[in-house]
Amino acid sequence: MQLEADTVDLGTTRPIVLLNNGDADELGAHPLDRVRIEHADGATTGIVKRTDKLVEPGTIGVTEPIDHVRGPVGVRLAGTPQSVRYVRKKLDDIELEARELDTIVRDIHENRLSDIELSAYVSAVYTNGLSLEETKNLTQAMSDVGQRLTWDAPVVADKHSIGGVAGNCVTPIIVSIVTEAGLTMPKTSSRAVTSPAGTADVMEVFCDVEFTTDEIESIVDETNGCLVWGGGVDLSPVDDRIIRAENPLSMDPPGQVIASVLSKKRSAGSTHVVIDIPYGEGAKVENLAEARELADDFKGVGTHLDIDVTCAITHGTDPIGRGVGPVLEARDVLAVLEGDGPESLRLKSLRLAEMLLDHCGVDASATDILESGRALERVRRILEAQNGDPEITSDDLSPGTESTIIRSERSGFTTRVDNRQLCDLARRAGAPLDSRAGLVIHRSVGDAVEADDPLYTIYAEQSSKLDEAQTLADRLEPVRVRSKADALVERR
Amino acid sequence: MQLEADTVDLGTTRPIVLLNNGDADELGAHPLDRVRIEHADGATTGIVKRTDKLVEPGTIGVTEPIDHVRGPVGVRLAGTPQSVRYVRKKLDDIELEARELDTIVRDIHENRLSDIELSAYVSAVYTNGLSLEETKNLTQAMSDVGQRLTWDAPVVADKHSIGGVAGNCVTPIIVSIVTEAGLTMPKTSSRAVTSPAGTADVMEVFCDVEFTTDEIESIVDETNGCLVWGGGVDLSPVDDRIIRAENPLSMDPPGQVIASVLSKKRSAGSTHVVIDIPYGEGAKVENLAEARELADDFKGVGTHLDIDVTCAITHGTDPIGRGVGPVLEARDVLAVLEGDGPESLRLKSLRLAEMLLDHCGVDASATDILESGRALERVRRILEAQNGDPEITSDDLSPGTESTIIRSERSGFTTRVDNRQLCDLARRAGAPLDSRAGLVIHRSVGDAVEADDPLYTIYAEQSSKLDEAQTLADRLEPVRVRSKADALVERR
Repeated sequence: MQLEADTVDLGTTRPIVLLNNGDADELGAHPLDRVRIEHADGATTGIVKRTDKLVEPGTIGVTEPIDHVRGPVGVRLAGTPQSVRYVRKKLDDIELEARELDTIVRDIHENRLSDIELSAYVSAVYTNGLSLEETKNLTQAMSDVGQRLTWDAPVVADKHSIGGVAGNCVTPIIVSIVTEAGLTMPKTSSRAVTSPAGTADVMEVFCDVEFTTDEIESIVDETNGCLVWGGGVDLSPVDDRIIRAENPLSMDPPGQVIASVLSKKRSAGSTHVVIDIPYGEGAKVENLAEARELADDFKGVGTHLDIDVTCAITHGTDPIGRGVGPVLEARDVLAVLEGDGPESLRLKSLRLAEMLLDHCGVDASATDILESGRALERVRRILEAQNGDPEITSDDLSPGTESTIIRSERSGFTTRVDNRQLCDLARRAGAPLDSRAGLVIHRSVGDAVEADDPLYTIYAEQSSKLDEAQTLADRLEPVRVRSKADALVERR
Repeated sequence: MQLEADTVDLGTTRPIVLLNNGDADELGAHPLDRVRIEHADGATTGIVKRTDKLVEPGTIGVTEPIDHVRGPVGVRLAGTPQSVRYVRKKLDDIELEARELDTIVRDIHENRLSDIELSAYVSAVYTNGLSLEETKNLTQAMSDVGQRLTWDAPVVADKHSIGGVAGNCVTPIIVSIVTEAGLTMPKTSSRAVTSPAGTADVMEVFCDVEFTTDEIESIVDETNGCLVWGGGVDLSPVDDRIIRAENPLSMDPPGQVIASVLSKKRSAGSTHVVIDIPYGEGAKVENLAEARELADDFKGVGTHLDIDVTCAITHGTDPIGRGVGPVLEARDVLAVLEGDGPESLRLKSLRLAEMLLDHCGVDASATDILESGRALERVRRILEAQNGDPEITSDDLSPGTESTIIRSERSGFTTRVDNRQLCDLARRAGAPLDSRAGLVIHRSVGDAVEADDPLYTIYAEQSSKLDEAQTLADRLEPVRVRSKADALVERR
């Protein structure tokens, strides 16, 4: 069928084409069918959206990703991408081969799948799981797409936490210690997606985090490390698209988690990686057995990709550190490097740094490096290389001016500190966009509490957001206090 | 957040709202998040789409389903619909309760789910299946939404085929026989979705098929029956939305099939139903055991809904009748009613009509009614009531003028007639939109064939479509002929 191509903006990243209902009928094209469009400069494939008013009969509306197509075009029905067949196969619980996973990853990368098809892929992986073999192949396929960093150093250290714990900003401390010990550690981190602060958001309190590959190389040349935003370099870009489909249903299938993490590590050129797997009630991994199984799979997939992986199974029920939100976490980080700061953050950072040093075969004491102030000196060099102020101290960092203290209604013991509720509250208060918004948590599990003692403080930059957070706080109970008797026998 | 609402046409049926990236960040709204919009006349919920150019900062773009929202509005993040939690539960293979399925159905009906979420629902049902209890509850929930027809007659007859067989247009013949025997049979049928002709497409060759509920009632008053398009009345409207998500992946989970079929039957007011379940290689149901299980489930769900269901497990490997496509099937139908026509169509129609008569407790002979010409008289009354020409004969119906005969390359026996390939070919030739396009099949399985004998003829209204069908025919082998030796031992 001959049609005239015209641009229509739908704000889409998929190659949607609009057909008038009459033309679509004539072509036999249903919604989500593909059409092949032959134009002056070649041919491309579009996903059909039918309409009775956005385009006139005789016109095909081309959206953003393919809006280079103009003028007279030949349009015919095309088959569905090969990967749709493989998604169906996975829905039928049949193991996928390497080339099939490769095709799926490439079609996702090139935006060839509709949301219906992408969601079916994610759902299939979630319900039917991925075998270790499939996970290996998927990881490889994901890291084959996008950019790949290379380093001269024979050992390139890295760490990753699978997340779900409030605070927990151990990365800048670990990078400072490990790079000071002489290792190369070019760390790329994410911004917050559903949490109140990603490591990149915290680092942005101190310095720039968006750099080109060349800039990153020169920072690492100078300081052995960096603490930058991974989104600035195109490492395993398919990951973001998959996560977009996983988020609405909170799907986090273990095989996909491993592939997401290790494909990025492989693309980043890492050779030795520590994976932090927090487990416990409310964490992403609920129990120790599951955590151990996940750790074994991480190591197995790592071996397949020539990445030496070790895992730290950590306590994931309570927050790490006291602050939640970019500035409040940044303050904790700097305080620990200054020789002070929250004990939980200091201990976890030291333990993971030690593991990573040992894993890389470096004989150095993380505690010595931290306590001697050398880690602080090192982070200052990194901040300076990333255009930050190397003289900054934790006292320079103050939270939002709007604040309210939430106090205990009774005396007793802290029986639970709920990561998820704390994160929801911090986001409601404005984090991460309002960098000085968030929480400071005053009590840990097991602490004795008197009636009216402060449990946590909410900070915001805007009073309206403080009000919203306060309203939510009235409904939640993120820091739970029970009398001694109730703490022993909880009636539900 | 205060914004100004402005209409943006995206050709969508979902309540998408466009937010400028800056406003979305400020609000903490990710793609596919929900926002609650408070406006002068009330409040509504929208699904977020982020954009950097379609709307200005300070503006919220409201799309078609909610474009009544205008002027200044208050916008805040809203939670996801309750049903998303239930979809996740089904993904986790946990049985859903009646009220949970009800919530899912209502949210689908009100377009509250994104494509990602709808696809996750369909995928979950496909991979984890539905228990009989879930199927019953889903069916009830689906038929509780939309219109409901009621009839004075204590017995209302109906039939349905789960499809997948080319030709197979038995419905008009059955309705003629059964209504002539005195039963009420107000038949609603579908148009083709992925097939070359639905029963409604075939009937449209003879008469109108779109009527209001009142008009349908008066046609049934006059003739005991009707043969109309179900889409004209709003019976179980959620079904179409679910099918839209099932089609790209060709998912047809049995529980969902039962719910789709019986929810429509319940909404149509049917009391006694025959379900035709074709089985065999290439059919939707592959083997007899599966067909029997499906039949039992159909009956169980029917009982729950007070519908008396019986099932006909039929041979589904070959086409029924000779014609494929609206006019060519209409010609076969009329020929059978005239006392002639393809034997397979005549026999299957008679057998199903007999089953339905018996099932409804009517002592009448389908064969007598057909052979006496009374069925022909009856269908003429129905055609007239539906504004058609009652004097039409099968000779009046001619296929498209563009045609080509596909001949056998060798002598031997017909070993396979492939339903799916025939349907693809007929669609390529232009069916169902070009009503006179399609195929006539000249050979059945087991027929002896000489080299150069005609196997099937392709008809089209447009020579370009005939060419396209011919090109496809060169790649396929819908009517397979093997020499006697090869037919016994097929080497693969």
